[in-house]
Amino acid sequence: MSFSVQILGSGSAVPTSSRGLTSQFISISSRHFLIDCGEGTQTQMRRFGVKFQRIDAVFISHLHGDHYFGLIGLLSTMNLLGRVKPIKIFAPKELETILNLQIEYDGSRMSFDIEFIATEAKQETVLFEDEKVIVRSFPLSHKVPTTGFKFTQKEKQRHLLVDKAKSHGVKFEHYHLLKSGVDVVNDEGKEFKSIEYTLPGESEKSYAFCSDTKYSESIVPFLKNVDLLYHEATFTEEFIDRAKATMHSTAQQAATIAKMANVGKLLMGHLSARYEDGEQHIEEAHPIFQKSEFVEDGNTYPV
Amino acid sequence: MSFSVQILGSGSAVPTSSRGLTSQFISISSRHFLIDCGEGTQTQMRRFGVKFQRIDAVFISHLHGDHYFGLIGLLSTMNLLGRVKPIKIFAPKELETILNLQIEYDGSRMSFDIEFIATEAKQETVLFEDEKVIVRSFPLSHKVPTTGFKFTQKEKQRHLLVDKAKSHGVKFEHYHLLKSGVDVVNDEGKEFKSIEYTLPGESEKSYAFCSDTKYSESIVPFLKNVDLLYHEATFTEEFIDRAKATMHSTAQQAATIAKMANVGKLLMGHLSARYEDGEQHIEEAHPIFQKSEFVEDGNTYPV
Repeated sequence: MSFSVQILGSGSAVPTSSRGLTSQFISISSRHFLIDCGEGTQTQMRRFGVKFQRIDAVFISHLHGDHYFGLIGLLSTMNLLGRVKPIKIFAPKELETILNLQIEYDGSRMSFDIEFIATEAKQETVLFEDEKVIVRSFPLSHKVPTTGFKFTQKEKQRHLLVDKAKSHGVKFEHYHLLKSGVDVVNDEGKEFKSIEYTLPGESEKSYAFCSDTKYSESIVPFLKNVDLLYHEATFTEEFIDRAKATMHSTAQQAATIAKMANVGKLLMGHLSARYEDGEQHIEEAHPIFQKSEFVEDGNTYPV
Repeated sequence: MSFSVQILGSGSAVPTSSRGLTSQFISISSRHFLIDCGEGTQTQMRRFGVKFQRIDAVFISHLHGDHYFGLIGLLSTMNLLGRVKPIKIFAPKELETILNLQIEYDGSRMSFDIEFIATEAKQETVLFEDEKVIVRSFPLSHKVPTTGFKFTQKEKQRHLLVDKAKSHGVKFEHYHLLKSGVDVVNDEGKEFKSIEYTLPGESEKSYAFCSDTKYSESIVPFLKNVDLLYHEATFTEEFIDRAKATMHSTAQQAATIAKMANVGKLLMGHLSARYEDGEQHIEEAHPIFQKSEFVEDGNTYPV
């Protein structure tokens, strides 16, 4: 099943003509999630043809405006367009107070339910789980409580060797157990081992999102072996002092984390408005971690 | 002195590719004001080259999101760019609570002072006055408390007939009194009448902003003889029932108000996203009030 990340905004702090503020649209096994929602996110969605009524849940990393000021506008538009489907919002608890005031002062009833779930920036937490997907948060190091998010697509069911199962007399009602990895015994007491009657399904895949954060090796365990890592790279080495002061990262630091975590590929983003593009970031990251690139708004990256 | 209105957004409810949400930049005798600030206003300002650090005060008409969700983002950007100059915000009192929470959760200190002045939607009020400008609010009829705004550039000083004054022996220190319309008497008891030694200065000019409002003749007295009127025209006659239900106006209704108030010119805006453009609105308004047009984002209209 599909698993992809579309970048809606890859700038930082202030929107520019080429980059919107942080937001990403995640499609994973027919679930649709939004990470962060800077001002203008709904406009970016329209621009890139993202159907925002499909969003099941929103994950907000922290309460700096460039990561959430667009959320209330997006919810308002969903309401004006008659959304009925409930939406989940995972965010620092203070956001609920702000949203509730904004909705109250608007004076009209929302057409759909908002389920608010407060996040916790102190330890890894499972925020959401169903049969196909797990979403976890984990702590980042920034000026205010901030979480990263990890989206995991669970291992697929094993593929049944149908002809072998049939010819050996496996009962039809045992097929799904074998595909789930369970060994079965028939009425005559004969055992059929899952591993002998199935081939492996597609393995687990995962995507981790880290924005905003200073360089911090303590996050490496949460990112270990993920297929795709987005790590902020606001600055190049030239501005490492500025990175430290603002608790952001450089491209080299992002690449170092990617290498330590042995990830499949690194996406860098959250570009400071002082840069025209991410070329210098790529140059500085490549010697440390070759499979890295700087994202562009609108691009979709498969996990 | 200059007096103009630049349209930053003329759409309603949801932003579209051609129209931003409500916001206008007013330049009046070297003062710079912003009316309303829908999501994306700061991006529109960049697009149209408006220097937002010049803004002295912001006037928010009401607390529907398409008129204010962009304000906190604009203030944040002013802060990030190191603004020092204080700013005044005139708005319904509830907005202060929301802004204060958003600033508090951001965790950093604003680099400039925000002076919040609560507006009152029950009667006409002078919000701001100095030697050159008066800004008043007045009540509109909408689903939540809403005010219109009237910006008046005061009458200019009279022009002194210098040669005549000199030759008749008017004392130099009396010149400014004559220019201000005051008659003077010299040491010998001779009177000099202002009207005989000066010509009229430029007369008072005014601009009134009405968005959002249902058709309401009660606002006509506040708009009487203004040089330029912006009146919302969300709908055409085809959707008059929708206009009534949502407490908005049609183009014919805007034109009727303009005619009754004997204004110099009518600007229509706040276009429903169901329309491609304002052509039909213009067709319906012209038979009632010829000097009317539908605004476009980025355009500047002299008062």
